[in-house]
Amino acid sequence: MKKKIIIAIDAMGGDNAPKKNIEGINIFLKKNLSANDFELHLYGDENILRQELIKQDIKSELIKILHTKEKVLDDETPLTAIKNSKNTSMWNAVNAQNYNGADISLSAGNTGVLLVISRMILKMMNDVSRPALAGLWPSQKGMSVVLDLGANIECDEKNLMDFSEMGAALFKSIFPDQKPHVALLNIGSEEIKGTETLKKAYAKLKDLKNKNNFIFNGYIEGNELMKGKSNVIVTDGFTGNIALKTAEGTAKFLVDNLKRSLSENIFSKFSLLFSYFSLKKFKLKFDSRKYNGAIFLGLNGPVVKSHGSTDALGFYYSLDLCYRIIKGNLMQEIKNNLSHLDVKNQ
Amino acid sequence: MKKKIIIAIDAMGGDNAPKKNIEGINIFLKKNLSANDFELHLYGDENILRQELIKQDIKSELIKILHTKEKVLDDETPLTAIKNSKNTSMWNAVNAQNYNGADISLSAGNTGVLLVISRMILKMMNDVSRPALAGLWPSQKGMSVVLDLGANIECDEKNLMDFSEMGAALFKSIFPDQKPHVALLNIGSEEIKGTETLKKAYAKLKDLKNKNNFIFNGYIEGNELMKGKSNVIVTDGFTGNIALKTAEGTAKFLVDNLKRSLSENIFSKFSLLFSYFSLKKFKLKFDSRKYNGAIFLGLNGPVVKSHGSTDALGFYYSLDLCYRIIKGNLMQEIKNNLSHLDVKNQ
Repeated sequence: MKKKIIIAIDAMGGDNAPKKNIEGINIFLKKNLSANDFELHLYGDENILRQELIKQDIKSELIKILHTKEKVLDDETPLTAIKNSKNTSMWNAVNAQNYNGADISLSAGNTGVLLVISRMILKMMNDVSRPALAGLWPSQKGMSVVLDLGANIECDEKNLMDFSEMGAALFKSIFPDQKPHVALLNIGSEEIKGTETLKKAYAKLKDLKNKNNFIFNGYIEGNELMKGKSNVIVTDGFTGNIALKTAEGTAKFLVDNLKRSLSENIFSKFSLLFSYFSLKKFKLKFDSRKYNGAIFLGLNGPVVKSHGSTDALGFYYSLDLCYRIIKGNLMQEIKNNLSHLDVKNQ
Repeated sequence: MKKKIIIAIDAMGGDNAPKKNIEGINIFLKKNLSANDFELHLYGDENILRQELIKQDIKSELIKILHTKEKVLDDETPLTAIKNSKNTSMWNAVNAQNYNGADISLSAGNTGVLLVISRMILKMMNDVSRPALAGLWPSQKGMSVVLDLGANIECDEKNLMDFSEMGAALFKSIFPDQKPHVALLNIGSEEIKGTETLKKAYAKLKDLKNKNNFIFNGYIEGNELMKGKSNVIVTDGFTGNIALKTAEGTAKFLVDNLKRSLSENIFSKFSLLFSYFSLKKFKLKFDSRKYNGAIFLGLNGPVVKSHGSTDALGFYYSLDLCYRIIKGNLMQEIKNNLSHLDVKNQ
């Protein structure tokens, strides 16, 4: 029998935890129960978690609770948290990959602390220069992967190379039927444009062409991020974070203004009666909760960070992402893509 | 009698020139004729321009044509263009600030060439470290100024300081009734976040507080670009360009999808009957043509670059921007803000 996928969940992390975490788990169970190929290991205060499971009437054998007394607080810095973290739900959910057979870890808690302790516990893959934070991004053709979203403020060409290969592996694990098309985010599409680092990364990726499991599309500009022609977009963590937040801000700004326009008078309000279902579908398609879950890549095991402020549905999507990543053999895909490095020998 | 504002226009630059340029000028004339405080100096082929003016039935004493035989082509590089540029409409429209009493120059032609020849002809202001390209950005409170949008790929703290002071001056010249609130674009709002360059610029701007004609709001993240709390947003040219294009791409993506949703079935199409005027107002409010015109700052005279692909209305907005900038005494505002530098003695 094939080993079940084990997802280790920090059940105490994020706003409104553990209620929203358990609600999200409930949605996940309802959708995937019949597959019966996974176990969810919940790290947190056993009493509180049991009560919440009873409250939500969840009785599944696919859930295990592993008791931890403490939790990482939102206002802790990585420094203070590491000292006190060994009994926390977050630490133990990550450490579960070393000691309790977990394949992946999920937390909606303090991002800074999660990145630091993940790196401490799981260690970097041999010869990977830096870990990166990858996210999902909507596009005209479906979804793309964008990285780095903020783990590294400054990057060199080796980092960008590693990100390209790991990002392509991540895309393949989530969308096994599609071919990864990698592009570097730049301020022009000609080969001579951009910083020296970008030009060097471009040259290296061009040389790698056809030797790896992805196609290299060259540079793209910010306005092509959502076109979907390239589905793995690589940049440094500073630029990636600015692009992500600018896109979020722009979408919110437009949708807020559209709502105001469509409720400004009796005619436009009346129109909502007829466009209700179309607008609802539109809203659903771009619901940011669907894109919840940033994947920490480059360590000897994957860690997914859910937004702290998301709700049960958002938490469900990040849990579903964990499940899909492991089903898609992320770690093996990364090793394949990095086979020219030492990682294959690990 | 107060001297009239003279705007030097490269009438041959941009797609569909000079037709769209003259049409844009026509819109401008109709709106501002009564003010009678400006002259438009058109640089280009006299025959072609005269014909176009006749075609569009424009007979204004406020227009002068200054004949130039050549024009800069779209595919020229700055290097080839400089050699051949002295008889072009672009070169002469910029040079008009030195020899023909122009206050400002406007072109929709080749951006790279315009930046290079503007710098050659107008020269940098004393002690300004780098010129910057500034643009208008919609916000919840109206409009903001964002710079640099791509003139400088990499910037140091002195550049960011200069951009802050010049950006604040630009904002004040366009919106004389509002106070400039400057912020640095970063990946977090705490003082310790970001690159070393940003931290140094932050410290310098904090020290300047209250000594200048703007308020320093510290850092903002990408999702706050459109909130309007800060109305002068400063960043390096790489990040600024990525943010601008990402915002454009996001807006296009959402609007395209919304259009598709609202025409997908008979009910949603029917709803358009009732929301028509509200949606039209919404569309008008965020019409990108309203934000057309990037301002090249830091030289001894202002140059405005219109999008090459814009239409007559877009060209009109960039011309109107020129007019407002000079009415608002941009160059004096810049000198005021930079009074701690040597520029006051120029």
